[in-house]
Amino acid sequence: MTGRFYAIVPAGGSGTRLWPLSRAARPKFLLPLPGPRSMIQETIARLTPLASERDIFIITGASHGDAVQLQLPDLTPEQFIVEPLPRGSGPAIGLATAIIAQRDPDAIVGSFAADHVVEHPERFVQAVRAAIATAADGYLVTIGIHPTYPETGFGYIHCGAPLGERAGSQVFSVDEFKEKPDLETATRYVSGGNYLWNASMFVWQARALLAEMRRLLPELSDALEHIAVDWDSPRRAETLAAIWPTVQDVTIDHGILEHAARVAVVPADLGWTDLGDWNGYGNVAATASEPNLVAGAELLALDASGAVVIGNGRLIALVGIDNVIIIDTNDALLVCERSRAQDVKAVVDELKRRGSTHLI
Amino acid sequence: MTGRFYAIVPAGGSGTRLWPLSRAARPKFLLPLPGPRSMIQETIARLTPLASERDIFIITGASHGDAVQLQLPDLTPEQFIVEPLPRGSGPAIGLATAIIAQRDPDAIVGSFAADHVVEHPERFVQAVRAAIATAADGYLVTIGIHPTYPETGFGYIHCGAPLGERAGSQVFSVDEFKEKPDLETATRYVSGGNYLWNASMFVWQARALLAEMRRLLPELSDALEHIAVDWDSPRRAETLAAIWPTVQDVTIDHGILEHAARVAVVPADLGWTDLGDWNGYGNVAATASEPNLVAGAELLALDASGAVVIGNGRLIALVGIDNVIIIDTNDALLVCERSRAQDVKAVVDELKRRGSTHLI
Repeated sequence: MTGRFYAIVPAGGSGTRLWPLSRAARPKFLLPLPGPRSMIQETIARLTPLASERDIFIITGASHGDAVQLQLPDLTPEQFIVEPLPRGSGPAIGLATAIIAQRDPDAIVGSFAADHVVEHPERFVQAVRAAIATAADGYLVTIGIHPTYPETGFGYIHCGAPLGERAGSQVFSVDEFKEKPDLETATRYVSGGNYLWNASMFVWQARALLAEMRRLLPELSDALEHIAVDWDSPRRAETLAAIWPTVQDVTIDHGILEHAARVAVVPADLGWTDLGDWNGYGNVAATASEPNLVAGAELLALDASGAVVIGNGRLIALVGIDNVIIIDTNDALLVCERSRAQDVKAVVDELKRRGSTHLI
Repeated sequence: MTGRFYAIVPAGGSGTRLWPLSRAARPKFLLPLPGPRSMIQETIARLTPLASERDIFIITGASHGDAVQLQLPDLTPEQFIVEPLPRGSGPAIGLATAIIAQRDPDAIVGSFAADHVVEHPERFVQAVRAAIATAADGYLVTIGIHPTYPETGFGYIHCGAPLGERAGSQVFSVDEFKEKPDLETATRYVSGGNYLWNASMFVWQARALLAEMRRLLPELSDALEHIAVDWDSPRRAETLAAIWPTVQDVTIDHGILEHAARVAVVPADLGWTDLGDWNGYGNVAATASEPNLVAGAELLALDASGAVVIGNGRLIALVGIDNVIIIDTNDALLVCERSRAQDVKAVVDELKRRGSTHLI
């Protein structure tokens, strides 16, 4: 008999490479990509077969709190944990885990980013069930994605010894977490067969994570436990405001998982992507029957294929250019070669440099 | 002693290939290309060294009459000849010539399109002065442009025997007017050296043109003389409405000049272009110092050159694509490879087919 399952959903990061649709005030996880629901709405829907709706917690920044709550009207205000300042995934996930543990010491907690795409939600549910069963044995568990190409923008997980089957899935120990590799290394990982993409999906007993945090990051542990103890008291705001700014900025991967004693991985094929840029969006949303991917506008294409178009109601005519990204918004228009989708970040950097803060 | 010089400016045609900036209700000649003044304003300015401002007449369609008058507030309403229906350049230029001849039988008349670009207006003035001097001898005179490349979209003029110098320019008889040639023929014309572009610039004694019209197109001649006789009478509107719809739709080139007895040409290098499409606009407006041509918007270009951009106030970011046309308007956006600029006409045709009349 395992503990009750709670889900936490870190909703942070603006998704710079999805500019000009994503903005500081309208981050990626609030956008309907690939649509029709927003990424965070889709994330919550994916979790409801696993956790009661009341057992899902959103961790987000102060500047996005209101917008997120507007998109998730079925959640109560108590289900939103709003960080006064960004401090990385370690403090965010650690605090949510500590708050849940205060209320339910036997809790099993999973963490799933608000801005990823999973094409096969039923496989996601199966993988999380295997992770929950493995976490019940005291492991910190991650779900690893079978890589389909040598992506250099993701971290990798090196699979170790098999731990047997849990809830219908094979589970392995984790030998090592690998940082984002260069292309040669990534190619070796993918052809080797025992490396998986780290998709930032984690499941653990609350007490197991908190014990590792106490061992590996004792100061952070003290700080978060202090906030968690006061969370369900009149002192919540005061304690949070006093302590949060002092906590260490660290990721859950670097701070804890890479050094933890018992880490397991559930390999899975989820049709997962972090939808990091417009080319990735094009790959996810494309349909075999249409030469161009169009949302939000009428496209009139002459001798043009492979386009990724998000419109703003206006007609868009495209003549004689293949593989172009066109993102049309009220105050900014992006026209970008698909192979250069990563460089949209450089556009945003340049806008920052020019002081065009209203556009970013 | 030559007669007084009058200028007529046919302002017709929507400039389909300059969509989406040009529209049926906002034709090319009203647009500020290359700017800052509109093409028709620039045309009038080019003529004022040659003709008194009161001696310039605009011939335009009923749907554009008000818009043209708004752009030319210094002209009186009597200087606008508004066609109830389009009937080609023959009736338009013929009627204006006949009206002027009613008032001044010794008039010399020049006709110059409202939507062409002349980079060297001082050479234009010199060429027109030579044409006026030649017209005084009874010739129908055209100004021919030394071709700079084998354009297949223009008609050509085959130069004949030299007629000597007039007002500082060499003048030739015209052997033949040639229709728009294929590329091979155009290449031969350009390398041959005695072919000129037909730029639809004409100068003649009013009585010489009207005599040729009477000989070559007697029905049209009767109709236009009838309208002209009644023009400065209370019967103007009634006669125009009764007769104009019945006149033959014919161009001045095909109907008269190709068959006229004494036709001369003044060759000139005017930096002339009809600015027929966005690529042509790009060639005219480009500056050597800037990699991209931008008007009406801020452009943020990363690894992009040769762009032709007309914006609508919004920021435009362009990444990794060379030689692209981006025309951004309130209700339609064009993204087009520069070498495909001619195909913008096909976009407009397709919009017509779809019934999107509000966009054309």
